[in-house]
Amino acid sequence: MDNTKKDLTIGVDLGGTNIVSVIVNSQGEIISYLKNPTFAGRGKEATIRRIIETIHKNIVQSNLAPSNIRGIGIGAPGPLDVEKGVVYFAPNLPGWEDIPLKKILEEEFNLKVVLENDANAAVWGERCWGAGKGINNLVGFTLGTGIGGGIIIEGKIYHGHNYGAAELGHMTVNKDGPLCNCGNYGCLEAYSSATGIKNRIRERIKKGLRSPLLNLDKTESVDTISLKSIFEVARQGDELTSEVVEEAITYLGIGVANMVNILNPEMVVLMGGITNEGDKLLIPLRKEVKKRVFPTNYKFLKITIGELGDKAGALGAATLLW
Amino acid sequence: MDNTKKDLTIGVDLGGTNIVSVIVNSQGEIISYLKNPTFAGRGKEATIRRIIETIHKNIVQSNLAPSNIRGIGIGAPGPLDVEKGVVYFAPNLPGWEDIPLKKILEEEFNLKVVLENDANAAVWGERCWGAGKGINNLVGFTLGTGIGGGIIIEGKIYHGHNYGAAELGHMTVNKDGPLCNCGNYGCLEAYSSATGIKNRIRERIKKGLRSPLLNLDKTESVDTISLKSIFEVARQGDELTSEVVEEAITYLGIGVANMVNILNPEMVVLMGGITNEGDKLLIPLRKEVKKRVFPTNYKFLKITIGELGDKAGALGAATLLW
Repeated sequence: MDNTKKDLTIGVDLGGTNIVSVIVNSQGEIISYLKNPTFAGRGKEATIRRIIETIHKNIVQSNLAPSNIRGIGIGAPGPLDVEKGVVYFAPNLPGWEDIPLKKILEEEFNLKVVLENDANAAVWGERCWGAGKGINNLVGFTLGTGIGGGIIIEGKIYHGHNYGAAELGHMTVNKDGPLCNCGNYGCLEAYSSATGIKNRIRERIKKGLRSPLLNLDKTESVDTISLKSIFEVARQGDELTSEVVEEAITYLGIGVANMVNILNPEMVVLMGGITNEGDKLLIPLRKEVKKRVFPTNYKFLKITIGELGDKAGALGAATLLW
Repeated sequence: MDNTKKDLTIGVDLGGTNIVSVIVNSQGEIISYLKNPTFAGRGKEATIRRIIETIHKNIVQSNLAPSNIRGIGIGAPGPLDVEKGVVYFAPNLPGWEDIPLKKILEEEFNLKVVLENDANAAVWGERCWGAGKGINNLVGFTLGTGIGGGIIIEGKIYHGHNYGAAELGHMTVNKDGPLCNCGNYGCLEAYSSATGIKNRIRERIKKGLRSPLLNLDKTESVDTISLKSIFEVARQGDELTSEVVEEAITYLGIGVANMVNILNPEMVVLMGGITNEGDKLLIPLRKEVKKRVFPTNYKFLKITIGELGDKAGALGAATLLW
């Protein structure tokens, strides 16, 4: 395929662990993909240089003439201001406060730059090229270290009054629940994110519960255990993990159900590590949702898993420029 | 004022207890107001005749030439289909199933008729003529016998995929909470609606708790006690009611906070009986919300009480025709 005649865009997904950069054509095909560690711990300036470096390398690696590139879309953790192009704060990027990321990248690359919340970008990716293709009322959950969300209304990303919408992980699902990273108690994220699940397992180890199957008896050993193993032993009735996993799914079901009764979307897309469980997640989840929503809101609802994996964010960001 | 030159519309608010009809000019001024009991218990046909009768009487009472009337907007309990003009089901209107209300009224009055969900109509009323004038991202809660809601996005009522959006009273706020009228457990409505508050007081009477201040010792006597009295004695530390009222406000705060983190609106408007408490409701409610939302989402947020009282629904319905 001759991509020199095509209009290409760069999409970047800035995470606390990795920076993903893709060069994408107008059919959503990835021409060039690059994943680099963020090294966020090295501080603000180093992280910004790292983003710039990753984009430059991706362009070089692609062998494309920069003149074919229309612009750069970047998904970053928030809160941020899409219009001003400023990241106000990013819990996983030490030192990031009021970073004018749009301006920095525009000056570096002399290209149009669009900034978006990372979860919004991922949901937009699924909306444009993945599980949600053509769906105009869509709610997406990004289930990773934390829980983010994106809301598509009438085919557009919904931002709210000052770009703060779709913080779906910070829905309170239990008023007296565990402390969340955001400072509130009983957020969905405190139950159903990887961090939430692991924190709750640590609490139970402190209380004296053990998992012979996982050889888990120290709180530190929880760090290295995969979600996959946790879910596996939980299904076998493991005392330490089964209640935690069950609650993670139940509360995720409540979070989804609430969005269904609030926004009556056509589709809910789930993304992120936990979705590797596939039907083992979807079947109990759908059951929980069905129990809690109006039958008329469930009738036409699709609850599904994203198709783009860890490329959703970068693909969505690239598509912001069309 | 010479209203004969004005373009007038009729707005109807169909409730389980009363039918309110207003004739309204394009400035949102009520030219003629009529409130009739619904007598819903007399059945489907009788209720429909009652609606027609109320509208006819209101026109006659107004002394206006029917030729000045542009159309009729009617807010009805749902679930319903705005486009088809059909009420599928209405828990408080016995016998109401698949009623083509729009068609019935169009044939009777030979006027354009618009059907809307009653809570949406009330929130639209506040958006156009009350507390939310000019606010384009607004969430409204109608706090009455049940709890309804309305969502305004970019200046328009948001309906969702099949007109099921904004069922804010049926957000699950406690997974193991009390049974709600909708069949789910732990809905906001089961805690913070008049019905929810009274049900929970009844449960506590059964458990042996008493309220000397209200002379409450039988579950049946709860029916006749006003919300106002319940809130009053609760503030005095009454054993029977204070925990119920406190939880009603806390859970309402959680419901509002969730909407703030989900939609990042500019304003949340509260309507209905419980809002007569004014600052005694607003002050603890705002405190609860602030605790649970992102600071950036709270910064520009207004949480306020509606200004139109029980006319909001009919006024909003009338305004659907502009």
